[in-house]
Amino acid sequence: MIRVAIVGATGMVGRMFLKVLEEKKPNVDEYVLFASSRSAGSTVHFMNKDYIVEELTENSFDSGFTYALFSAGGETSLKFAPIAASKGCTVIDNSSAWRMEKDVPLVVPEVNPGDLAIHKNIIANPNCSTIQAVVALKPLHDKYKIKRIVYSTYQAVSGAGQQGYMDLEDGIKGVPPKKFPYPIFGNCLPHIDKFLDNGYTKEEMKMINETHKILHDDTIKITATTVRVPVFYGHSESINVEFYNDFDLDTLKKDLANFPGIIVKDDIENNIYPMPIDAAGTDEVYVGRIRRDFSVDYGVNLWVVADNIRKGAASNAVQIMEKLIEKE
Amino acid sequence: MIRVAIVGATGMVGRMFLKVLEEKKPNVDEYVLFASSRSAGSTVHFMNKDYIVEELTENSFDSGFTYALFSAGGETSLKFAPIAASKGCTVIDNSSAWRMEKDVPLVVPEVNPGDLAIHKNIIANPNCSTIQAVVALKPLHDKYKIKRIVYSTYQAVSGAGQQGYMDLEDGIKGVPPKKFPYPIFGNCLPHIDKFLDNGYTKEEMKMINETHKILHDDTIKITATTVRVPVFYGHSESINVEFYNDFDLDTLKKDLANFPGIIVKDDIENNIYPMPIDAAGTDEVYVGRIRRDFSVDYGVNLWVVADNIRKGAASNAVQIMEKLIEKE
Repeated sequence: MIRVAIVGATGMVGRMFLKVLEEKKPNVDEYVLFASSRSAGSTVHFMNKDYIVEELTENSFDSGFTYALFSAGGETSLKFAPIAASKGCTVIDNSSAWRMEKDVPLVVPEVNPGDLAIHKNIIANPNCSTIQAVVALKPLHDKYKIKRIVYSTYQAVSGAGQQGYMDLEDGIKGVPPKKFPYPIFGNCLPHIDKFLDNGYTKEEMKMINETHKILHDDTIKITATTVRVPVFYGHSESINVEFYNDFDLDTLKKDLANFPGIIVKDDIENNIYPMPIDAAGTDEVYVGRIRRDFSVDYGVNLWVVADNIRKGAASNAVQIMEKLIEKE
Repeated sequence: MIRVAIVGATGMVGRMFLKVLEEKKPNVDEYVLFASSRSAGSTVHFMNKDYIVEELTENSFDSGFTYALFSAGGETSLKFAPIAASKGCTVIDNSSAWRMEKDVPLVVPEVNPGDLAIHKNIIANPNCSTIQAVVALKPLHDKYKIKRIVYSTYQAVSGAGQQGYMDLEDGIKGVPPKKFPYPIFGNCLPHIDKFLDNGYTKEEMKMINETHKILHDDTIKITATTVRVPVFYGHSESINVEFYNDFDLDTLKKDLANFPGIIVKDDIENNIYPMPIDAAGTDEVYVGRIRRDFSVDYGVNLWVVADNIRKGAASNAVQIMEKLIEKE
């Protein structure tokens, strides 16, 4: 009997967990929905049933869960994931709290499913911007070996949760933002997550560090600039890649198209390229504007788009759980 | 007596010519406003006077003009700039038609004013995205010598003219776009200007070629990805730069701050960084997020923002005219 806890069930990603689970219908016998005391007690319609959201407490995992999908912020994960793990529940955590821990696999199922083999009941879901990037980069790294990456991102407001979304919607009417430090409507903010002493944001360092960990290659040189743009759903990324080895551009496009989880949208004669409004609501990673970078010996420019709440968070976590269920 | 023709006076950039001229009050004795037959006959209030916009014809320059500020599209420039030039009028052209011609200086007054010394009565105003980039790059190239640039842009809809602007405004209400091939509200379009056979857009190639021409250095390796974002005014650019020579980061920030036309906004502890909503309505180029790129020996990441209709078009053209007037 497989019992699954949804922790943070009323948040932006939590609600998407429920939607994706309804769509994918993994082989689960029972779900229990948890949230903080603030949201506990509310009713959520899920799988044709009304669920009362329970308050997350230190005893929540005593009843025995197989898996827990966490998306309730780093502090909740730091406190409750070890409790769940100690009671035999495998936590798939969407926060950044555990991602860089040595014993915690950081997994994108299309990219490094083998990393699920050994874990201590905590598995981390990578950062949204990283997930879509590594899906696109994995087949290219395997074949041409990546030397250096320059990331510039165009990230949707939903990545900052419900209030981020509302800040854009309210901003249209001139309402000042509550989540972002400045208006996001009609603006770009080169600022996602906290600033660090080295001048980078945490978001930028996540992209650098998590790419290394997921691709199992710390020798890849990476830099990143992450930017919030007035888009509701769907992160876009301008990715400049330099390889050690030469490539044929048409073959490289096929390498991408043949990789699971990627849809190549690259027919510029017919104005076909990835856009966030098309990616929204889907689980694929869209790659386009694929063209040789003439400024280095072996380089390529990519434009990579995916739904940040689905593939960038909820769908990836559910896919991890499905992989684990397969292996049971 | 200095007589100035404004060609395309009713367009997005044309109207900004008038606004900037009213602000800067260059030493001009008389203005005549021209537009296509479609807009001719309309009345424009300018310099406390009502001007009747005249239709641009092959005889328009017979009355003798010292300067003409053109912003009426490439075809109009190709046809009428040589006519004006042949009659002794110095044309400052905002279209891309003449920029890469050998005898046509391509000028950003802070960067390469010396190029104004020799011309054949046609001077080109660079592409909006290029202008702000080269202002930021010039002091760094002079001091540390640039090896390679990776541009990723976040460009405002006003760069596509009045209908581009309206597409964003109307898009909020769900009205389909007229200028752009897809909705721009809540979206990003990795597509500015036409696609070329090499997979790049004309906008991307403009950034590459014009940077070479303005900085007088074709050896700089450059690649670019240009993207339209739902911002009304103000282009933003993520610029990754690799140098031949090492630098001290604090000194480099001062190099930028000391360069004319640049305002460094880079105080991350207080969330101070450039944003399009702040740059809009001003003539400066704002540089922030200045940080060492650890993925190369000597590299830096910059976030560069400027008003694309002012510094990126009208103000730069008027500044060119002011330089020419100074020299008379």
